[in-house]
Amino acid sequence: MKKIVLLRHGESLWNRENRFTGWTDVDLSPRGQAEAAEAGELLRREGFHFGRAYTSYLKRAVKTLDLVLDRLDLDWIPVCKSWRLNEKHYGSLQGLNKRETAERYGDEQVRLWRRSYDVAPEPLAADDPRSPHRDPRYWGIPREELPLTESLSQTVARTLPYWKCEILPALAFCDELLVVAHGNSLRGIVKHLKGLTDEAIASFNLPTAVPYVFEFDEGLSCIGDYFLGDPEKIRALMEAVAAQGTKQG
Amino acid sequence: MKKIVLLRHGESLWNRENRFTGWTDVDLSPRGQAEAAEAGELLRREGFHFGRAYTSYLKRAVKTLDLVLDRLDLDWIPVCKSWRLNEKHYGSLQGLNKRETAERYGDEQVRLWRRSYDVAPEPLAADDPRSPHRDPRYWGIPREELPLTESLSQTVARTLPYWKCEILPALAFCDELLVVAHGNSLRGIVKHLKGLTDEAIASFNLPTAVPYVFEFDEGLSCIGDYFLGDPEKIRALMEAVAAQGTKQG
Repeated sequence: MKKIVLLRHGESLWNRENRFTGWTDVDLSPRGQAEAAEAGELLRREGFHFGRAYTSYLKRAVKTLDLVLDRLDLDWIPVCKSWRLNEKHYGSLQGLNKRETAERYGDEQVRLWRRSYDVAPEPLAADDPRSPHRDPRYWGIPREELPLTESLSQTVARTLPYWKCEILPALAFCDELLVVAHGNSLRGIVKHLKGLTDEAIASFNLPTAVPYVFEFDEGLSCIGDYFLGDPEKIRALMEAVAAQGTKQG
Repeated sequence: MKKIVLLRHGESLWNRENRFTGWTDVDLSPRGQAEAAEAGELLRREGFHFGRAYTSYLKRAVKTLDLVLDRLDLDWIPVCKSWRLNEKHYGSLQGLNKRETAERYGDEQVRLWRRSYDVAPEPLAADDPRSPHRDPRYWGIPREELPLTESLSQTVARTLPYWKCEILPALAFCDELLVVAHGNSLRGIVKHLKGLTDEAIASFNLPTAVPYVFEFDEGLSCIGDYFLGDPEKIRALMEAVAAQGTKQG
């Protein structure tokens, strides 16, 4: 049985402050580091032995992966990084507090920005210091590919080519792969694998640092999926993510 | 000006215990972590911006690299790992205390094992639990390539193809590269770049976690080299390495 494990990074400093992060390169919080190590410990106890791992260009994902690999004694395996696994770009919302944004624009508008499939926040200006056009890490990428804001649908559209061309084909020579990324880039992969509707994926909340296992047959067709860990704890984590970005959240 | 920086990993738990390590996958000590972060800080202050980095399959090098990249805010760059950058394989000496080994076999024999160019320690038995033939991380490598012991000359012979085929050619598309590896695999590269004799490289001691910068012209010819940091401190570090493995050391 071949397996790919999807893992959302541990809590970042801005998750804790409840701010829109997107492509801002925010570090893990101490709690996020502990969550990552715990996920690694769980994967170790379950006997996972990844041949290769994938992550984004953002350090909260890279460092979560490093902590997981260290617990598995797999510091040495190949790691491939791609901007296509980055979080959804939140445009001009990046840096704003989610609760304050909800108070200003209303819960419904924030829910649309965060959870609708097709609505993108206001884009960054091209000369905004936060623009990926100004960040050397993205200089090797055609400018028209680089978002200044994204809807979930646009995030999915730039994530799936990497899944299809790089990650899934590697199952042909590795039995177990690990992908450490973000709530919305992983949503795109889950939507694709489970054939979910636009509405269903928009209300699907991936808990942080809980390994989500997908099983594949020899023909690389997906034949099953499950979370690793205590089901009650996972449910509570998913509800906590859903509650962010409301005035109460 | 194109540059490649060579960096020997920070102190490991077995450096501290003065034991022969070789391919044993020993972690960094807390001091080694601090040394790595300090090297990263120095490279940041000097304005280095690496496009790509290389390291071995051994976690003391991988983690040194991770700590350096984090200080440079370059967690996102591509990292290539190869067993060819591993430390010299110390055969059946791996795990033994250097001072005790010197007391048992004499300073001169230990000096030959550590610092001669052509003398290898006794090999591991092929069925020794420490053998790389038994470690899954090396299963993708032809068995005849995998050492059970090595002289410095053999370490150099398996390191240089990676330097020639992977690292140096990447200078064509990256202006600055970083290589984090081990005392003896880096010796091979230094010998090659500086055209040192067998005797000269055997008595050359690379200090831990001190960035060693090589400069290249557009034709990828090496045109200069220097250590970063305080010259007096570097001299003291090189002397400390040379003194290990004597009864006094």
